Amino acid sequence: MARWKLRLEYDGRPFVGWQRQENGPSVQQVLEDAFAHFSGETVRLYAAGRTDAGVHALAQTVHVDLAKAVTAETVRDAVNHHSRPWPVVVLRAETVPDSFHARLSAVGRRYVYRIVNRRAPLTLDQGRAWHIRSPLNANAMHLAAQALVGQHDFTSFRASHCQARSPIKTLDRLDVRRRGDEIEIAAAARSFLHHQIRNMVGTLARVGTGTWDINAVRRILDARDRSAAGATAPADGLYFAAAVYPDEPVEIAEMNTRGVRPTPETWPGDHRRHGPESPCHP
Amino acid sequence: MARWKLRLEYDGRPFVGWQRQENGPSVQQVLEDAFAHFSGETVRLYAAGRTDAGVHALAQTVHVDLAKAVTAETVRDAVNHHSRPWPVVVLRAETVPDSFHARLSAVGRRYVYRIVNRRAPLTLDQGRAWHIRSPLNANAMHLAAQALVGQHDFTSFRASHCQARSPIKTLDRLDVRRRGDEIEIAAAARSFLHHQIRNMVGTLARVGTGTWDINAVRRILDARDRSAAGATAPADGLYFAAAVYPDEPVEIAEMNTRGVRPTPETWPGDHRRHGPESPCHP
Repeated sequence: MARWKLRLEYDGRPFVGWQRQENGPSVQQVLEDAFAHFSGETVRLYAAGRTDAGVHALAQTVHVDLAKAVTAETVRDAVNHHSRPWPVVVLRAETVPDSFHARLSAVGRRYVYRIVNRRAPLTLDQGRAWHIRSPLNANAMHLAAQALVGQHDFTSFRASHCQARSPIKTLDRLDVRRRGDEIEIAAAARSFLHHQIRNMVGTLARVGTGTWDINAVRRILDARDRSAAGATAPADGLYFAAAVYPDEPVEIAEMNTRGVRPTPETWPGDHRRHGPESPCHP
Repeated sequence: MARWKLRLEYDGRPFVGWQRQENGPSVQQVLEDAFAHFSGETVRLYAAGRTDAGVHALAQTVHVDLAKAVTAETVRDAVNHHSRPWPVVVLRAETVPDSFHARLSAVGRRYVYRIVNRRAPLTLDQGRAWHIRSPLNANAMHLAAQALVGQHDFTSFRASHCQARSPIKTLDRLDVRRRGDEIEIAAAARSFLHHQIRNMVGTLARVGTGTWDINAVRRILDARDRSAAGATAPADGLYFAAAVYPDEPVEIAEMNTRGVRPTPETWPGDHRRHGPESPCHP
């Protein structure tokens, strides 16, 4: 029996999310079925980030235990063969010590959120970005976002059904930048509360349009009340970009444009704290 | 009657191409129908680049004559409303002198071609890039491409049904560069022969895999025989990025990553030659 660490990419559109559910196809189910076809084993996959319906992944990390003795190339190619035509693939497979756990060993998670800010509807980016027609001030959004960085009680940005024991999280980074008509938001933390990123983005969008001023974010945070914050931003724009493990270089799937590409790069400000992720997902 | 210049973006997947055809929906037909709904006029659109089936546009330029007196914002928003749910939009509309002709006035055209070079199939990029599993040497491809830059008889890279009077074209630029697992090819010329870019890319891919050496491209060019060159690369990876007009800054839709975004920028080596495009499209 060997433990395998897999790096995944997927288009979240056809899925009910990472986790198996009764009401539709999940990334987990498609991959577990692919493993069953390939190795004959009933396996269970564990993911660093349990993404919601419609959320994409550029570099999701999962692990799985496999009895069949195979090469890394075989695992990658066989799973990719059997998961067709679902838009989820194994980019890389490697064996890891049994002590590795994709979720529990992760000490950091990075997401990117894409907004296309223009009057015209989306064409190539349909389902892959949040379309906002009103002009957004990305500088104001970035300044406002800095009030969220650090350790805070994120109750105002937490989904009502979030099961985390504590609403206190430490946000390492929340950067907003504009490139042409696209606005990219990069978020890094050890872990996030359910819908935290989409709720933060929904709030920052209201700052961007000028509906709320920059200081509103601090007031919303202090209110510790979900109804004080902006609406949850759509899943379309959210991408799981990287999971961080101790003593490993981080390969960031950075969004440079209206699309996304993983490039090996160490993201500055990487904190190496340990401990399990809360039972929530952004 | 006013002449309008429009900048379009579209996802080429559902279309038979730019031009009206009997066998399916074209970008031209969807937009001409949208104009008819909005203004009640029967209009004809002229495009800088008549893209083939499946070819995308980041910044296609077209012109149309309209009797109805309207603002630029109305033209943009009304056409975008009536062209739904087709993935084609007007990004910008502006009135131009009657002497302007989207095709005949254009003195340059820029395309980008995207290859994703990895073992795993595409997910987010399905239909938006050419997937090549064998490792490609992008440096070799770039060096080989330089043999095509300049004025040449491009018979070897011309579709058999191309109707251009002459196979002689001047290629201003053909740059190949790798970013992670993506290879981007940027092509610039006053005009191209039918399938010229896709045939050049198909040939460069064989250089990239090592099947052909760098000097093969020169020999293929000299052969003046379509069968000497590589297969036509799929439409999926091709994007019309810009049309160039005299005395106008060029706004290049540059592909920085696994996706594309128009950024205002003047592309170096811009040649300001005049004259109509040949009746072909790359």
